[in-house]
Amino acid sequence: MSQRIRFTLPQAEIPAAWYNLLADLPEPLPPPLHPATRQPVTPDMLTAIFPENLVQQEISSERWIEIPEPVREIYALWRPTPLLRAVRLEKALQTPAHIYYKYEGVSPAGSHKPNTAVAQAFYNRQAGTRRLATETGAGQWGSSLAFACRLFGLECVVYMVKVSFQQKPYRKLLMQTWGATVHASPSDQTEYGRRVLREDPNCPGSLGIAISEAIEDTVKHPGTKYSLGSVLNHVCLHQTVIGQEALKQMEMAGEEPDVVIACVGGGSNFAGLAFPFVHRKLTEKKQTRIVAVEPTACASLTKGELRYDFGDTAEMTPLLMMYTLGHKFIPPKIHAGGLRYHGMAPLVSHLKKLNLIEAVAYPQTRVFEAAVLFARTEGIVPAPEPSHAIAAAVDEAIRAREEGKPRVILFNLCGHGLLDLSAYDQYLSGQMKDTDNGNSQTES
Amino acid sequence: MSQRIRFTLPQAEIPAAWYNLLADLPEPLPPPLHPATRQPVTPDMLTAIFPENLVQQEISSERWIEIPEPVREIYALWRPTPLLRAVRLEKALQTPAHIYYKYEGVSPAGSHKPNTAVAQAFYNRQAGTRRLATETGAGQWGSSLAFACRLFGLECVVYMVKVSFQQKPYRKLLMQTWGATVHASPSDQTEYGRRVLREDPNCPGSLGIAISEAIEDTVKHPGTKYSLGSVLNHVCLHQTVIGQEALKQMEMAGEEPDVVIACVGGGSNFAGLAFPFVHRKLTEKKQTRIVAVEPTACASLTKGELRYDFGDTAEMTPLLMMYTLGHKFIPPKIHAGGLRYHGMAPLVSHLKKLNLIEAVAYPQTRVFEAAVLFARTEGIVPAPEPSHAIAAAVDEAIRAREEGKPRVILFNLCGHGLLDLSAYDQYLSGQMKDTDNGNSQTES
Repeated sequence: MSQRIRFTLPQAEIPAAWYNLLADLPEPLPPPLHPATRQPVTPDMLTAIFPENLVQQEISSERWIEIPEPVREIYALWRPTPLLRAVRLEKALQTPAHIYYKYEGVSPAGSHKPNTAVAQAFYNRQAGTRRLATETGAGQWGSSLAFACRLFGLECVVYMVKVSFQQKPYRKLLMQTWGATVHASPSDQTEYGRRVLREDPNCPGSLGIAISEAIEDTVKHPGTKYSLGSVLNHVCLHQTVIGQEALKQMEMAGEEPDVVIACVGGGSNFAGLAFPFVHRKLTEKKQTRIVAVEPTACASLTKGELRYDFGDTAEMTPLLMMYTLGHKFIPPKIHAGGLRYHGMAPLVSHLKKLNLIEAVAYPQTRVFEAAVLFARTEGIVPAPEPSHAIAAAVDEAIRAREEGKPRVILFNLCGHGLLDLSAYDQYLSGQMKDTDNGNSQTES
Repeated sequence: MSQRIRFTLPQAEIPAAWYNLLADLPEPLPPPLHPATRQPVTPDMLTAIFPENLVQQEISSERWIEIPEPVREIYALWRPTPLLRAVRLEKALQTPAHIYYKYEGVSPAGSHKPNTAVAQAFYNRQAGTRRLATETGAGQWGSSLAFACRLFGLECVVYMVKVSFQQKPYRKLLMQTWGATVHASPSDQTEYGRRVLREDPNCPGSLGIAISEAIEDTVKHPGTKYSLGSVLNHVCLHQTVIGQEALKQMEMAGEEPDVVIACVGGGSNFAGLAFPFVHRKLTEKKQTRIVAVEPTACASLTKGELRYDFGDTAEMTPLLMMYTLGHKFIPPKIHAGGLRYHGMAPLVSHLKKLNLIEAVAYPQTRVFEAAVLFARTEGIVPAPEPSHAIAAAVDEAIRAREEGKPRVILFNLCGHGLLDLSAYDQYLSGQMKDTDNGNSQTES
């Protein structure tokens, strides 16, 4: 009989509810503040850009929030996702560690992002929204929202960070295949975009700028709401299907992870895998180590400050209490476009402050070294973003070897890299450089 | 409770044996002939380019051939693949038909090709081969062999049809990421390639030419064997895991397919899904209709002749009894590069001759119309090749609606189209033309 390396669940095991970490926090999350008054925002201020049902979810303190059946039915296209044991990677590293990964790349968009895109499109449809505006970095979020909008009959407009728009033409085409309208940001579609372009016609863009553009688009177009692919509580909430499935699958494997690892940009894939493990840590006093991995080029958790800051560059969003590099920070053009964000989800920031999680940063070339090792042992070509998690998992496994101590490692492989192959080309041809002295590009 | 649309099997249900159609044929398959003597080839003639264990498999008449454990362990990276019911496509077509698809796009290379690539790399490794040479059209086969060779520590060299090499840079990068060497064919690496280039420096290439180059490379390099991604009996054999799983999954769905559909180029994904159903047709007298779908631009089954012909352009291979457009035929540059082959697997040809299967041809624009409809209803962006099967499945479903008769349709979605998005771009921008008057480009 073959060694068991693949742990799968049937459709009926798609989680019935999302897990809401807000219900279990030992210390309450500082509220978002109004940018002008600096007073806590009230739900009705948020309904200018979000539908009321999602605003309610954003502030809910219910521990379990039922997943609507139409959302679960679409999840079934790719969920439950597989959990795999990386036996060939273990062998290559000659490690006594057991390495498991949850693989979210089997979704139609190739990443974990549809978990929240489908939920957001559903709730917006229910609330009567006709059109959704959003921003995207590498295009993983934009393509996921394009996919979800198409399934629920909503129009979709995406402001895509210009450097990714240029570097990743296939992701733009993917959004267009699903029927979305895509603008390179900064664009001439918004007043803010035009202002940025006047000041710097060659501006590569950033998530912060693209968010400002998408919000301006939202408030100026009737029937339009705004949709965010990370950072907010309800986005983290929707991703918790990942960790809930992983808990069951690790049980099938008969192992308990000693360390749980995921990359962080805005924080959503990390939240998705980690929050159900944080829940156990808080309620069952498990000792699991939980590690967030970020790029040194955009290291909010390890180099940022914990303070109130804007979510966007134009100062249109409420102020969020988060680890931030400053909302004017424009990250270097690393290939992990999905991790180029100046701030961190307030919930993830809060966990870091409470020492419930750890954080570590990796430079780009070490990330691609790990990515190529993974592709050549496990076969799956990982996206640049989760390759940060792979790099940290590899280092954990090497430490296990050096210490002669087994351990069980679980990481989130939140997307494949089939649309990021030009980055591999750059790495394999020796042209990739580290740009982690990114602070020289800080504007604030 | 959600409607059940996803039918999955655990790792333990990966088939234990491949199904060998040769054991059940009502009439024996005409043997391959030596190109010079026109006498049946003997196994030792084939061992010049194939390892002996695969030659034995090519001619075996055992009904079930055990799958080695190391192969099943690698299959477990993505197998068993899901079977899904296309409920949103059904709704869009307002059809009483139930449409199911087997989804092979979850493999690391994004198609069904690794099913045989992994087996061939394993047997070659066992036989002491150090290096494998092959050709590839769209790059799906080349990337699959690159992946498999990497896992078994073999060198891999790929002759990639030039038009695809240019149109699909990401597939080339994928092969290189897995460590393969890739040449645009016709290339300057072989005598035959140089001759073709002298005659026509702008030759777009064809599978026939690339096969000749790979075979020449094989016989000239010690330790090298040749590997083919379709056409041959052992390749069709390795793909039968698809149909075996699908049979179990249709049983889980509680339905019996009335019609089974797959696209055909060389015939391997069709064989994979169809042969286990042919087995039931032959042994249990089931009435299942089985339909092969080809491009009108390269329509060997519907427009070709059944006769002995060469598998390659340079007349280096044995003569195979197959439906063929002539081995000098260079197909138009359709986007379904994997279907640009002048001939058809002898086993598939034989089934067509015995009226055990049907064949139909579709022009490119109708194929992409179906592909976009599928992407926008089911969410998965299909590769151009299986979009031929989608087009036929859609027509079956429309006939069901027109006749007011339900029916159960099963097709093989043998790969995703994430690396074919430039073809979608061309279609969506209205620039795609049909080139099914391909015979004007026939050279023989």
